Amino acid sequence: MSDMMQRVVLAARPQGEPKPSDFRLESVPVPTPGEGEVLVRVIWLSLDPYMRGRMDDSKSYAASVGIGDPMEAGCVGEVIASNNSKFAVGDFIDGRFGWQTHAVVDGVGSRKLDPAQAPLSTAVGVLGMPGITAFVGLNDHGRPKEGETLVVSAATGAVGSLVGQLGKIYGLRVVGVAGGADKCAYAVDELGFDACLDHRAAGDASVLRNELAATCPDGVDIYFENVGGKTLDAVVPLMNVFGRIPICGMISWYNSGGLGAGVVEGPNLLPRIWRTILVNRLSVRGFIITDHYDRFGDFQKEVSAHIREGRVKYRETVSEGLESAPEAFINLLRGGNFGKQLVAVSPDPTHG
Amino acid sequence: MSDMMQRVVLAARPQGEPKPSDFRLESVPVPTPGEGEVLVRVIWLSLDPYMRGRMDDSKSYAASVGIGDPMEAGCVGEVIASNNSKFAVGDFIDGRFGWQTHAVVDGVGSRKLDPAQAPLSTAVGVLGMPGITAFVGLNDHGRPKEGETLVVSAATGAVGSLVGQLGKIYGLRVVGVAGGADKCAYAVDELGFDACLDHRAAGDASVLRNELAATCPDGVDIYFENVGGKTLDAVVPLMNVFGRIPICGMISWYNSGGLGAGVVEGPNLLPRIWRTILVNRLSVRGFIITDHYDRFGDFQKEVSAHIREGRVKYRETVSEGLESAPEAFINLLRGGNFGKQLVAVSPDPTHG
Repeated sequence: MSDMMQRVVLAARPQGEPKPSDFRLESVPVPTPGEGEVLVRVIWLSLDPYMRGRMDDSKSYAASVGIGDPMEAGCVGEVIASNNSKFAVGDFIDGRFGWQTHAVVDGVGSRKLDPAQAPLSTAVGVLGMPGITAFVGLNDHGRPKEGETLVVSAATGAVGSLVGQLGKIYGLRVVGVAGGADKCAYAVDELGFDACLDHRAAGDASVLRNELAATCPDGVDIYFENVGGKTLDAVVPLMNVFGRIPICGMISWYNSGGLGAGVVEGPNLLPRIWRTILVNRLSVRGFIITDHYDRFGDFQKEVSAHIREGRVKYRETVSEGLESAPEAFINLLRGGNFGKQLVAVSPDPTHG
Repeated sequence: MSDMMQRVVLAARPQGEPKPSDFRLESVPVPTPGEGEVLVRVIWLSLDPYMRGRMDDSKSYAASVGIGDPMEAGCVGEVIASNNSKFAVGDFIDGRFGWQTHAVVDGVGSRKLDPAQAPLSTAVGVLGMPGITAFVGLNDHGRPKEGETLVVSAATGAVGSLVGQLGKIYGLRVVGVAGGADKCAYAVDELGFDACLDHRAAGDASVLRNELAATCPDGVDIYFENVGGKTLDAVVPLMNVFGRIPICGMISWYNSGGLGAGVVEGPNLLPRIWRTILVNRLSVRGFIITDHYDRFGDFQKEVSAHIREGRVKYRETVSEGLESAPEAFINLLRGGNFGKQLVAVSPDPTHG
C-alpha cells in the first residue's frame, strides 16, 4: 500500500449546477487505524442525487459537507488493516467511506459482504441504499394493491428501476417517465414496464400529461416521486381518489436554487397541487431511508430472491477512478447516467 | 303554509369573488311530497367555505351546482308533511335542503334531532359537519400526541375553533392564526388557545413566520390547514420531523382562480414546500368529511360530552332571512364571519 491516498473535497458551495471547480482532488497521507478501527481500501463508490443537498449549507435532515471536507458517499471496500475483532484483513465491507481511496472507520453500521452471494457493487445499489429506498417507498408509503396504476419518475435510475419492477411483481400497471428514448426502451423491453414516456421528447407538462393520461386509462394510484418539476406537474392532476405520493427525491429542482430561500419564477403551482391533494384525498409522504433500516432484513430477503430468480434486473454505469467522480456526479444530476452510477475507485478482485 | 316558497339559485359562475348577481332569489310553488318523501320547512341553513367550489364547473369531489339550480347546503328543518313512516309532522331533522325555504326530500341521511339534547343549530355546526371535520381531521389525520404543538388556521371558524379546543383537551400547545385582533383575543380568552396570531396585522408571510416561530419554540408538529396562502407559506418551514398536515380547506385561494387551470403569479412556492415535506418526512393528507361518517358516533359521544361539561364552546353568527344568504356567504369568503355562519331561514320554535 502506498503511503499517500487521494480524496475529493468540497472546494466551494455550488450556485445552481455544480462545476468541476467546486470539487478538489487532494493527496493526503493514509491514516493509521486506532483502537477498534479498520483501514479500508475503497473499491466501489456510489454516486446518488441526495449528495447535491449536502453541498448546500441550508438546514436539512443531515449535516452539510464542510468546505474542505471530503464529499460523503456510501461505498464498498476491502479491509487492509484491522484493530477491530469483527473485521479481518481481506474482508469486504460497506460503509460511508466518502469520496476517498482509503478510509479509517470504526465499522459501526458496516456489513461484511459475501461476494459469492451477490456482486460487491450491489451492496451500494439494488441490494443497498437505493434498493431499500425503492422497497420501503413503494411498500410502506405507496401501499400498492393489485391492479392499481403506478407512475415512477427517473424510471431507469437506481431507485426507479426497482420500484417499477417490484410494481410489476405486485400486479400493478407500471408506467415510467425517463429522459431519453433509450432509457424508455430499456424500461419496457428489459425491465418489463407497461409503458415509459420520454419527458425530454414530450416538451412541456401539458403534453406529458396528455401522454400519461393516454397510457393510464384508469388514472394513477401511486406516483413515486423522484424528480419534481415538470413530471410532478404532469402527473398530479391524474391522481385517483385516495392516491399516494411517496416523495423520495426531486432531482429536477436540486440545481435550481428554488429549494432554499431563493425566489423561483412562477406560475405558482402550489395552489393547484394543494387543491388536488384535498379534492382527491391524496396521501403525500416524504421519507428518508435512514429512518427505515429496520426493514433491511425484509428488503434483502425479498429482493435478493427476485434477483436470484431473474425477476429483477439492474444496470450499472461505471466511471473509472476517483478523479472521475465530480464529472460523473455532474452528469448524474443532468440525468446523463443510465442505471446505478458507480465510481470504480480501485480494482474489485471478485469482479468477473 | 303558503303555496309559494323562496329559493336562491346559481345565476352565473363567479369569476373570482362571487357577486350578488351570481345568485338569484326566486319564488316557486311549494312542491308536494311523493311516496316515501317529506316536506320540510327550513329553519337553519349552514354557510360553509366548500360551497365556493360547487359554484365552479371544474371537476371536484362533488358535482357542481348547475346554472339555475338551488345552491346546496346542509340545513335543519321541521317536517310539515310526511309520506315517510320514519318521520312525523313536527319532527326536526337535518339534511341537505339547499338554499331554500322549503324542500322535499326522501329522508335518506337525515337524522331526527332532539332539541332537548342540544340547540337545533348545532346539528349543522359544532355537532354536525364542521364538528366531525375538526374531530376526524385532528384525530385521524393529525394523530396528536400530548405535549406536541398544533397550529390551526381560520382558528375561530366553525372547524378551527373545535380543532384548537380539542387540541387543548388532548394536552397540546395550541396556536391559532386568525384574521383580526377580536378573533385572536376570543381564541385565547374564551377558547383557551395558548396564543393566536393575526395574519392581517402580520403583513407578509415572513413576518407571520417569525411570529409563529416565537410562539412555537419547539416547532410545529401538526398544521391543521384551512386556508392555504400566506399562512401555509409561513407555517411549513417550522414543521418538525414527522409532522402532519391534514388539509381540510384552502379558503384564501377559493376566489383566486389559481385552483383551476388559471395561471397564478409567482414565485412558485411548490419546490420549497415539496422539499420540506421530503426533508422533514411530513405526512400531508387531504380529506373530505363525507368519507368519514363512520366516525359520527364516536364524534358525537365525545364532543357532546365536552360541550355539556363546558370544555368546548362555540359561537354562531346569524344572518336573518334566506334573502341574506348571498351577502353572508360573500362575507364568509372574506373572513367577515365570526364563528359558525348560519342563516335563520324561518323561526326556530325551540330557540330561547
